[in-house]
Amino acid sequence: MREVFLEDLKPGQIFSSGTVRIEAEEIIGFAVQYDPQPFHLSEDTAKHTFFRGLAASGWHTAALTMKLLVESNFKPAGGLIGASLEELRWPRPVRPGDELTIKVEILEVRGSRSKPYQGIAKIKTTTLNQHGKAVQIYVANIVVLGRKKEPKPQRP
Amino acid sequence: MREVFLEDLKPGQIFSSGTVRIEAEEIIGFAVQYDPQPFHLSEDTAKHTFFRGLAASGWHTAALTMKLLVESNFKPAGGLIGASLEELRWPRPVRPGDELTIKVEILEVRGSRSKPYQGIAKIKTTTLNQHGKAVQIYVANIVVLGRKKEPKPQRP
Repeated sequence: MREVFLEDLKPGQIFSSGTVRIEAEEIIGFAVQYDPQPFHLSEDTAKHTFFRGLAASGWHTAALTMKLLVESNFKPAGGLIGASLEELRWPRPVRPGDELTIKVEILEVRGSRSKPYQGIAKIKTTTLNQHGKAVQIYVANIVVLGRKKEPKPQRP
Repeated sequence: MREVFLEDLKPGQIFSSGTVRIEAEEIIGFAVQYDPQPFHLSEDTAKHTFFRGLAASGWHTAALTMKLLVESNFKPAGGLIGASLEELRWPRPVRPGDELTIKVEILEVRGSRSKPYQGIAKIKTTTLNQHGKAVQIYVANIVVLGRKKEPKPQRP
């Protein structure tokens, strides 16, 4: 897979990933460690909550999305480095047995004023379940290196 | 710790948490599973990257922040259920040995028009390191239940 530099990115480009299946055991394991709330911990305790059944922590979905992104065909030079997110939504719950995949769309590309050898790409990442429904959407600004390298300081 | 309902929340209220220490082993473990990039995987591979040393995945910081939030003195009735985030930033990296704590500020509280027995609180969650510097900031809209319960449907 070819690395992309700032100059290669254009608004409207779409990248995609493989899929990952999420099981109840993993949902519960993540929740025990990072989000121990009844609706993430067991089918039983989840039944009478807002989610009416076991649902993955939104942060678990975000982490799995990152995994899919790293393994996707979107390979910015220097790595995937998020500067900030402008928006992050979880439109529907992720359930045991769901199979997730992502779609990445380039929204904007701009050079950095202060650092001429890098820039920012605004991307929209949508995480879809096996029914093609969005379970997570975010808009992020990521750091992307330009093709020109920063000159090394001259020795006197 | 007392549960809070929608009616108890007012803009300007501040909640806080204990601390959690993050070690290199945990940073690497999370990265292997969810964010396998050189700057999260080992001191050695991280040295010559953007981060110039091992740094935690931003999603790891987000997950640890959720843990601190669940264990904090902010206990909304019905649990901590994020509807969306308006903003999420990682102003500086999290390093091995860092000790994190969070501060939660209530920014806005509004009732739901379509669901009169719940509402939305807009909160700002700041994750601080042991030097009191912000490593993550987000503004989220969370679902909060009102004190009045939804009436059960009448049987004919």
